[in-house]
Amino acid sequence: MNNFDLHNPTHILFGKGRIADLDAQIPAQAKVLLLYGGGSAERTGVLGQVRSALGNRTVVEFGGIEPNPRFATAIKAVDVIAEHGITFLLAVGGGSVIDATKFIAAAAKYDGDAWEILTSMGSVVKSAMPFGTVLTLPATGSEMNPGSVITHAEKGAKLPFMTAHCYPVFSILDPELTYTLPPRQIANGVADAFVHIIEQYLTYPVAASVQDGFAETLLRTLIELGPKALETPDDYDIRANLMWTATLALNGLIGAGVPQDWASHMIGHEITALNDTDHARTLAVVLPALMQDQRGPKREKLLQYAANVWNIREGDDDTRIDAAIDATRNFFHAMGIDTRLGDYGLGAPDIDLLVAALESHGMTALGENQAITPDTARRILNAAL
Amino acid sequence: MNNFDLHNPTHILFGKGRIADLDAQIPAQAKVLLLYGGGSAERTGVLGQVRSALGNRTVVEFGGIEPNPRFATAIKAVDVIAEHGITFLLAVGGGSVIDATKFIAAAAKYDGDAWEILTSMGSVVKSAMPFGTVLTLPATGSEMNPGSVITHAEKGAKLPFMTAHCYPVFSILDPELTYTLPPRQIANGVADAFVHIIEQYLTYPVAASVQDGFAETLLRTLIELGPKALETPDDYDIRANLMWTATLALNGLIGAGVPQDWASHMIGHEITALNDTDHARTLAVVLPALMQDQRGPKREKLLQYAANVWNIREGDDDTRIDAAIDATRNFFHAMGIDTRLGDYGLGAPDIDLLVAALESHGMTALGENQAITPDTARRILNAAL
Repeated sequence: MNNFDLHNPTHILFGKGRIADLDAQIPAQAKVLLLYGGGSAERTGVLGQVRSALGNRTVVEFGGIEPNPRFATAIKAVDVIAEHGITFLLAVGGGSVIDATKFIAAAAKYDGDAWEILTSMGSVVKSAMPFGTVLTLPATGSEMNPGSVITHAEKGAKLPFMTAHCYPVFSILDPELTYTLPPRQIANGVADAFVHIIEQYLTYPVAASVQDGFAETLLRTLIELGPKALETPDDYDIRANLMWTATLALNGLIGAGVPQDWASHMIGHEITALNDTDHARTLAVVLPALMQDQRGPKREKLLQYAANVWNIREGDDDTRIDAAIDATRNFFHAMGIDTRLGDYGLGAPDIDLLVAALESHGMTALGENQAITPDTARRILNAAL
Repeated sequence: MNNFDLHNPTHILFGKGRIADLDAQIPAQAKVLLLYGGGSAERTGVLGQVRSALGNRTVVEFGGIEPNPRFATAIKAVDVIAEHGITFLLAVGGGSVIDATKFIAAAAKYDGDAWEILTSMGSVVKSAMPFGTVLTLPATGSEMNPGSVITHAEKGAKLPFMTAHCYPVFSILDPELTYTLPPRQIANGVADAFVHIIEQYLTYPVAASVQDGFAETLLRTLIELGPKALETPDDYDIRANLMWTATLALNGLIGAGVPQDWASHMIGHEITALNDTDHARTLAVVLPALMQDQRGPKREKLLQYAANVWNIREGDDDTRIDAAIDATRNFFHAMGIDTRLGDYGLGAPDIDLLVAALESHGMTALGENQAITPDTARRILNAAL
């Protein structure tokens, strides 16, 4: 097991009806900025529940945060904070609203050009406004981690940042809020969480029995319950386990003390940048091809994955690895997610563009061994055709 | 899954050589009280490492904290805090030293009679001094939870308290510090962690796939690595997994959203009070007998335990449950721990004393269903003869 630090101060309030506990989590004298995205939070009634829970507080609202949240939008929110003397932020939504709120929380306290928060990947951040979240879409894990990704449309850049100052103070996770999500968003959330776990698990063994067992538990939960969530959208226990799994998939726990990969994410980002394919779907395209290509370096963990996640125990090593890759692909298909570049309108000629984009973004040594060069990425993308 | 809150602010620094990071975790201007137990921390060199890491700081030392730490000893430490203007506590040791430090941290800030902290089970605590820990014995989980047990020798009482103010600010977990532990302490620590997990797992199903899978991972890790830790005391990865497992066994994670039992602990406490049997060994006596007696109410989880922890899948329900109970007993034996009352010099006549003690302490409705009455406890103890 590798050395690690683990320090996650976010207070999780999980379960039915927990929005009722919202008001008590926010300082009594706080002036609150309520942040949300498009119309769905209004339509589903979650915004109504939140407004009602906040009672007679001074609350200013800031809606319209986009998927892949924009720098320019966030800066408008920073202006609203200054104008109204806001002291606490409350994000109601999924990963995009929460990511935007993290950036707004840091930018509101940053003296320089807020763009530096992104170019420094968060290292310039020395403080941030306190904020809480009400999660409506289980997927990214942003509700219990300190990371965020912001898009600057004019600069054509989508940049991550991370800082210990940007853990949510609290996050309310009510599985019932997810009943009304469209199947496409549930499927994307399950696939996103699945690949988050794989990025921290499918590398090489470091004798981390606990982390491996936890990761395998989360993967098996998604495999068992993901397709059922599509069939029976209002099954509380299914939604509860999926919601908690998505949070635990990226809250620091399973990645503590083990190597991490993240090559599928980096390659997938370029696909989204090229043709706006949903993030989760790019992962479902890249991951099986990457498993196929990296079956040498990842051999031991692929065999462990086959046995412990898929119960594949018959046949020689390569047979079992092939079966595990097929099973992975079939799992995405069962979630209604296609796994080939061609399914998203991309062909061999696009691979040059994708590889060039990786190079231009400095992504030339990806993966747990920094061995995924542009040539390797090309091979992986060809295997994903 | 049941509703839950989860909020654990302790910063874990895990791995080889992490005492080197100790100084940076303590405020620069702090006046530190270094608390420890008997001579082993000195003999093994861990105190030397800690003193060296603290460099030129103002440090006052307070040694001699007992196993089953005493109220009177803790009050002496509170006096030292006042006398020297101490602002930060540092516990170096196992659960006893850490538990004592939690009580000292709360008592130093409490205006009334510190005994009220215990009689109120912690509810009167409104603040506590900040403290960190350097863990030397993986067992109780105290390094990442807010609970503590203090013994008042004169009053003949051993009382727990718990308060959100008593999470350690940080805990340093270096598995190499455990190489020199006597086999008896390693065995006790593994058994203690095992039963901590069981108390939060072996109740009745609430469709908590994640929590169940995590608990099963931790149980399998102890079963696989516990006996090996006795054979090869200086295997880093074995010690690392055991240390991390013992912390995760009682840091709130696996118990969030599920029913909890704790009857084995309550009955076991009376055995320790009667003849000073090691806490972990009382659990190894009570647990298998309780499983036997409660096979009705615990049926579904016992079958799940048999399958997922012990891979027992053949035979009818009762056969599989019997096999799982035998396997549990054999695991304790493999750790060098006896599992019968007679092994600890107790016989049928002592059972009256134990049941009377439970009644006098108000322990008349134990377990996840509050169904373990004194009569049931008597039956369990008879099954443990």
